[in-house]
Amino acid sequence: MKLLEHRILRDGEVLPGGVLKVGSFLNHQMDIRLFDEMGAEWRRLFAADGVNKILTVEASGIGMACVAARHFDCCPVVFAKKSKTSNVDAGNLLSAQVHSFTHGNDYTMVVERKYLGPGDRVLLIDDFLANGEALRGLCKIVRDSGAALVGAGIAIEKAFQPGGGTLRAEGLRIESLARIAAMDDAGITFC
Amino acid sequence: MKLLEHRILRDGEVLPGGVLKVGSFLNHQMDIRLFDEMGAEWRRLFAADGVNKILTVEASGIGMACVAARHFDCCPVVFAKKSKTSNVDAGNLLSAQVHSFTHGNDYTMVVERKYLGPGDRVLLIDDFLANGEALRGLCKIVRDSGAALVGAGIAIEKAFQPGGGTLRAEGLRIESLARIAAMDDAGITFC
Repeated sequence: MKLLEHRILRDGEVLPGGVLKVGSFLNHQMDIRLFDEMGAEWRRLFAADGVNKILTVEASGIGMACVAARHFDCCPVVFAKKSKTSNVDAGNLLSAQVHSFTHGNDYTMVVERKYLGPGDRVLLIDDFLANGEALRGLCKIVRDSGAALVGAGIAIEKAFQPGGGTLRAEGLRIESLARIAAMDDAGITFC
Repeated sequence: MKLLEHRILRDGEVLPGGVLKVGSFLNHQMDIRLFDEMGAEWRRLFAADGVNKILTVEASGIGMACVAARHFDCCPVVFAKKSKTSNVDAGNLLSAQVHSFTHGNDYTMVVERKYLGPGDRVLLIDDFLANGEALRGLCKIVRDSGAALVGAGIAIEKAFQPGGGTLRAEGLRIESLARIAAMDDAGITFC
């Protein structure tokens, strides 16, 4: 999606350690017009898939997921909560253990079981895909719920990290709106 | 706002300890059509105020703030992040100490300074107002930034708790779409 690529080139900042800062428009201050265009593009890509629920994870996926939902007949959006305790009540909650490479810690992602189930056709939405840990956790939650997993809409994929390749090889359909092949002080190259 | 009151009566659950659970439509699973109506109502209430930025706090304010922003000419939405460390770099960050009665802990709310400043006319949006600690923190951040504080749009105010009264007495304009006068096992009464 050229609009997002151009915005990353204009306003993104590459920091040491492979960090891409997009806080001015994507995940701290949020450009709602851009989110609306992203939602329209995900809708175009998943138009034939009968999406009737969107699942994301707090916090930075929520805004784009809610704006995108308008393009999927205002379907409900559920966000997985991050819990520090791994000891969650398995009866009422769907959960997945996730390792965060960004923050160097582990957390448990939880969703109340009653908000996902058979009959739901779920599109996952998140801002970043790098090692794929968060996305893998969301996939597990959908599988455990009995819902159908349609695929994942990602804003920015770091294609030089292994998450996207591994999850696609396992059969997940992933539509990333900007795929970064390489980035360093000299600039950002898209796939 | 009758639509929200009716939804609370239909789908809200009153738990012991004065807890109102609205996870099925407001802050875990989110009803995007309802959020859109809430945004339209806040727009009607703040139509003359020149709002050009919305500030909320992670995680459950983000979805309604982003959907509401469409009614304010798709203005940018900034969300304050919750940090566990009180030792934040004051140069780049606006911050406020907040006590959470819900979780029984303290946290620091932070916003990067470059995303709020003179020229911004800020509407605060959040899902709940009870003791008012989070809203007070957002007010401090706007004041410290030099931006103009237009007021606050709240989904559900627990009017039997002191936050709304205190903040209004200090001059903050607060527009709560549902104001709960009392609630217990027997039911919920609106103001």
